[in-house]
Amino acid sequence: MIGFIGGTGPEGKGLALRMAMAGENIIIGSREQEKGKLSADSLTNLVGQNQNTGHISGGSNKSAAQKSDVVFIAVPYPGHKKTLTDLKDHLHGKIIINVVVPLSFNKGRAISQIVPEGSVAEQSQEILKDSPVVGAFHNISAEDLLIPNKSIDADVIVCSDDKPSQKYVMDLAQKIKGLRAIDGGVLSNSRYVEDFTAILININKIYKTHSSIKITGL
Amino acid sequence: MIGFIGGTGPEGKGLALRMAMAGENIIIGSREQEKGKLSADSLTNLVGQNQNTGHISGGSNKSAAQKSDVVFIAVPYPGHKKTLTDLKDHLHGKIIINVVVPLSFNKGRAISQIVPEGSVAEQSQEILKDSPVVGAFHNISAEDLLIPNKSIDADVIVCSDDKPSQKYVMDLAQKIKGLRAIDGGVLSNSRYVEDFTAILININKIYKTHSSIKITGL
Repeated sequence: MIGFIGGTGPEGKGLALRMAMAGENIIIGSREQEKGKLSADSLTNLVGQNQNTGHISGGSNKSAAQKSDVVFIAVPYPGHKKTLTDLKDHLHGKIIINVVVPLSFNKGRAISQIVPEGSVAEQSQEILKDSPVVGAFHNISAEDLLIPNKSIDADVIVCSDDKPSQKYVMDLAQKIKGLRAIDGGVLSNSRYVEDFTAILININKIYKTHSSIKITGL
Repeated sequence: MIGFIGGTGPEGKGLALRMAMAGENIIIGSREQEKGKLSADSLTNLVGQNQNTGHISGGSNKSAAQKSDVVFIAVPYPGHKKTLTDLKDHLHGKIIINVVVPLSFNKGRAISQIVPEGSVAEQSQEILKDSPVVGAFHNISAEDLLIPNKSIDADVIVCSDDKPSQKYVMDLAQKIKGLRAIDGGVLSNSRYVEDFTAILININKIYKTHSSIKITGL
């Protein structure tokens, strides 16, 4: 089971949809159990009937954490530290996939905030000391993820200090149509990928699109 | 005339070569006049005889600044502030193209340093108050630039607060075979592009290649 903490936001919901489409059973967590359930229902409707699709359920963030072996963290950055601190007893030893970007906005312009630990991924690793944390999926458009049949022409840069977990997440990313996984090295490299999201959002505004990145020369 | 401050380093030299190939007259600047001249001679040999090639000369950083209307800044980050402060009287009103990345290395791993002004581009704008500064070319492999006929499959993200200078640099970038210029918005967005160079260098080490980026979805 793959859980989504903050799974009712667009990025979490989009990734949950694609994971279910890839055959994974998923649980959408929310601060409010009822919202998690409603989100799961709407995703089930969106994905339609398909025998290869995983089961989609919803509930509280706590139940999503408890029931899962792999947990996506997709909360807004201002709530990141508190949410993980509250949930940490339910996350021991689980693979943590952190997709959080430390964004703030000033007059419509996206700005990446300085994270004291270096990156949001490292902040979560400091809280969840005995769980392998992987930073990934920062630059993938939520809007595109939420269109079930849309192929996404982008790379997912995957950073972690735990090689087996990194490999697992790279394989998971490649289950999403169009995505290619890139080994981004150690967890502290996640900072560069998190921060780059700010300029992609600014480029989106200039070009009126949903941009992403690909690494060339590999 | 296009000048290159710190033009004897690989990035400056590679960009100078490509600008000359695009028909621009260039001058390679160095802290030592003789080194600038030697670098110019080696580029002239590398590019060969071609009637469309611009003239390549070399000299001190000061003479490169004085003789040019457009000036690339390609010094290593530790010398950035002092070099520009020393040269500022010769750079009034000129278009400044800053390609500097604030890199340091720890056990072979590239790390982007925090720049007090936000980015190297903004640091140069603070020193050169009456010159339009443009941040660009941070993610382009010097090694690839130095192979004259190699097409470079990459995007150049161009950031500036001065729209006409930004447009000029975008057009200039597209004179290099394979490159596409992207409007990266305001100068302070340069931080994200500068910093991303660190993870590209780390990816280069993992994949044993010269990587770069392309923006998808435009």
